[in-house]
Parts: sequence; structure tokens; C-alpha cells
Amino acid sequence: MKKYAIIVAGGSGVRMGTTVPKQFLLLHGRAVLWYTLQTFLSAYEDMLVMLVLPAEHLEMGRALVDSMVTGRVQIVTGGATRFHSVQNGCRVIAGAGADPRRAEESVIFVHDGVRCLLSKGLVQRCHDQAVQLGSAIPVISSRDSVRLVEGEGSQVIDRSRVRLVQTPQTFLSHLLLPAYEVEYNEAFTDDAQVVEAAGHAVQLIEGETNNIKITMPEDLVIAGYWLKEGLMAKRD
Amino acid sequence: MKKYAIIVAGGSGVRMGTTVPKQFLLLHGRAVLWYTLQTFLSAYEDMLVMLVLPAEHLEMGRALVDSMVTGRVQIVTGGATRFHSVQNGCRVIAGAGADPRRAEESVIFVHDGVRCLLSKGLVQRCHDQAVQLGSAIPVISSRDSVRLVEGEGSQVIDRSRVRLVQTPQTFLSHLLLPAYEVEYNEAFTDDAQVVEAAGHAVQLIEGETNNIKITMPEDLVIAGYWLKEGLMAKRD
Repeated sequence: MKKYAIIVAGGSGVRMGTTVPKQFLLLHGRAVLWYTLQTFLSAYEDMLVMLVLPAEHLEMGRALVDSMVTGRVQIVTGGATRFHSVQNGCRVIAGAGADPRRAEESVIFVHDGVRCLLSKGLVQRCHDQAVQLGSAIPVISSRDSVRLVEGEGSQVIDRSRVRLVQTPQTFLSHLLLPAYEVEYNEAFTDDAQVVEAAGHAVQLIEGETNNIKITMPEDLVIAGYWLKEGLMAKRD
Repeated sequence: MKKYAIIVAGGSGVRMGTTVPKQFLLLHGRAVLWYTLQTFLSAYEDMLVMLVLPAEHLEMGRALVDSMVTGRVQIVTGGATRFHSVQNGCRVIAGAGADPRRAEESVIFVHDGVRCLLSKGLVQRCHDQAVQLGSAIPVISSRDSVRLVEGEGSQVIDRSRVRLVQTPQTFLSHLLLPAYEVEYNEAFTDDAQVVEAAGHAVQLIEGETNNIKITMPEDLVIAGYWLKEGLMAKRD
């Protein structure tokens, strides 16, 4: 079965306090996005990557991809929101203008480009579960108590039932591609919700605690530490 | 009004992979717990600290407190769980054996010893709100989507309503002390829940994203980075 990774890298550097967008910041001499791409490309020899970038970062993305000497990364122009960016990636996979339900069945990973610390093992586990159950949404438990705000007050939620959601959110193409032809809804914060809105249940899978989003300067420090310690390599 | 901080430092070093309990690990030459104590002591000149430690760490705790040249930290022996440790702290404040409802009204902070990165400003904001509204529970928003596991499936929770709970959980003594005379319940994961079980609503307050628990080796790296950058000092 074909394997596609839609890697969404649409963020700016605002929260980082930098002018370089965070997905292009350097970690031990390589862009954050380089590590992400490398992990997906090395997880499967036949993995094809759709790298979705805002128009203003296409050139930087092209330079990065050229440096990797691979023919397996295609650059796609992003949309106004994360939803629209993923939708663009889906449409390239389905073949422009084609009926997505007629596309050849494949496994599609949707991943945040700034989550550069995921392991190859997580990609492979998500693949295997999606092939078997249709989807794989990586989640981890919360280390803190969790509350739900309700009007003026709040109530505690049973922490043992709470899960924090990561990516790659992984789906068989017959679930993901038609789901992304829905009308945009502001309530969509991830791909699992889009697929659920199309009437399909999604299946969770254990994520990784260090599969964090690089959004704050301190995240770059942590990421550098993990890469230096070789913790990534050990887990593969 | 008197001010007491019950600082609970009961953890072992198991998750850290160290033999030194995590609250005594060094950051720039000082124990994690030193920073925590220092922040509370410097937030108010009349702050009194009840440092609750497991019996096997009393000696290490004594050495740390002696090094700080302050008469404002009292060491209290911990109990079997966090609940029992906080309860021991409450009983020392109430006066051994006394009716907690007759204790003089005061503001009581309950804080995790390994959250060593909180600012003085947070302590002061919690104090002011507790004086005004009875309690102050610091919370932050979630950076990830959140799901609730239900039987075989799961459902997304509206992220805008989710809050991750921190400490210091701060209360007027007439709310906290009698609440902690309740029978232990495994469902209690923090102090807000104990006070709610006694029939009182609790009030949330904005926490701090770097007010993390030092529980994993990488947390120590982040903490060291923040301290080095002087981000703590700038926020005071």
C-alpha cells in the first residue's frame, strides 16, 4: 500500500521572537524541518512526502529539500488555515480534480512539521494500526490535573481519561480524502475531528512524551538536548 | 493576615533514573527545592514555610534549610500519599489536635516542591485573589487538542474550555484546614478537589507556562536554561 506524509509547516516565528519561521530554525546545524522529513523518509523506503508551506516560505523549503538529495518530497502551497493546508495536500494525493473516493487506497500521515522529535518507531506503529483499524491518533496522558471551564466555574475531569493529542494522525485514504472535502469549520483543530465529522470513529495509539511542538524558545533547547543525547537514535 | 506555604516534596528519583530524589537535584549548584523555598520566602517577608518531606529525606532537608539562614522554614514529616502529607502540614498550621475551624484566619499556599520555576509574582497574585475570593488555583491552556476516553472510544473536548492545573493552590485557612480533615479518597489528585469535596467552589487564576514539575531529566535541562537566561528575575 502506498504511503504519503502530509507535513504541514505553516507557522511563523512570532511566538519564538525570531524572524526565521520556527520550522526553519537550526538544531545542531540542521533545520527543525530537516529532522521531521528525515524521520518520515527513513521510516519507509517508499514513503512520499507532501511538504505544505506558506507561499512566502516556498523558496526556503525548496533549498532545504534540494539539500536532502531525494526525489520523494513534493512541495505544496499552503492555505489560509491548517485545515486548508492539509486539504491542499490531500488534493495533490487524490490527483487534482479527481473524485477522492476513486484514489488508490493508501496510508496517509498528517504531521505538524515542528514536531521534529518523533521516532521512526512511532511512524511505523501508526502505519500498522491504520492498516489494521483505519486510523491511528497518537496521544499521551496528562501530567497535570485537568479542569473544564463551565460558565463562571470549572469542574475537574478524571485525569485517567484525559489524553493530549499529537501527530502524525494517520488514516487510510478512503477515510481521510473524502472527509477533507467537507466545508471548513472553525471547530476543527486537528484531522481526527475532520474524519469524525464525516461519520467515522478514530482509533487512538500511544504517542511519545518528547514528540513536542517546537513553538517556544525553550522547546528548541529541549530538542537540542534530546538530539545530543542520542535518545532519538536509541529508540529507533 | 498570616501566610503559610505547605511545600510538598515527597517524590523519589525513580523517573529521573537517579538515586538523589528529584527535589534535591542540583541546578546551577543549588537544589531544585532551594529555588522553590527562595521564591516563597522572598514573596513576603512574613511567609512561613512548612516543608513536608518523607522520613528518609528529613536529614537532607534539614541540611538544605540550615544553609538558607532563615528561621521561617519548619520541616514536617510526610505521609503515605500527597494527601496525607498536605494533611500533616495543615495540622501543624492548625496546631496539633486543635479544632481547625478555630485557627486564626490566614492564607495557605499548597505547592509541589519540584515546581521550582514559579515567579514571586504568581505567589503574590494567588495571595491577592485568595484574600478576595477565598481561593486561587493557577491553570494554563493546553497547547494540544484534548480527548476524553470513553469505554472503547474517545471524544474531543472543546480545547478552549480545557485548563491544565498547577500549584500553588491557594486558600483561606477556614476553607482549607477543615476540608483536609475529611477521610482520604483516592480520587483526590490535588487540593482544589479536597476543598470542593467539602462543598466549596474554587476560583481559577492564570498560571505560568514555565511553572513545570521537574519530573524527567529533560525538565532539569529546561529549568537550567530558564534560570540561566534570567527569565525568572525579569518576571519578578
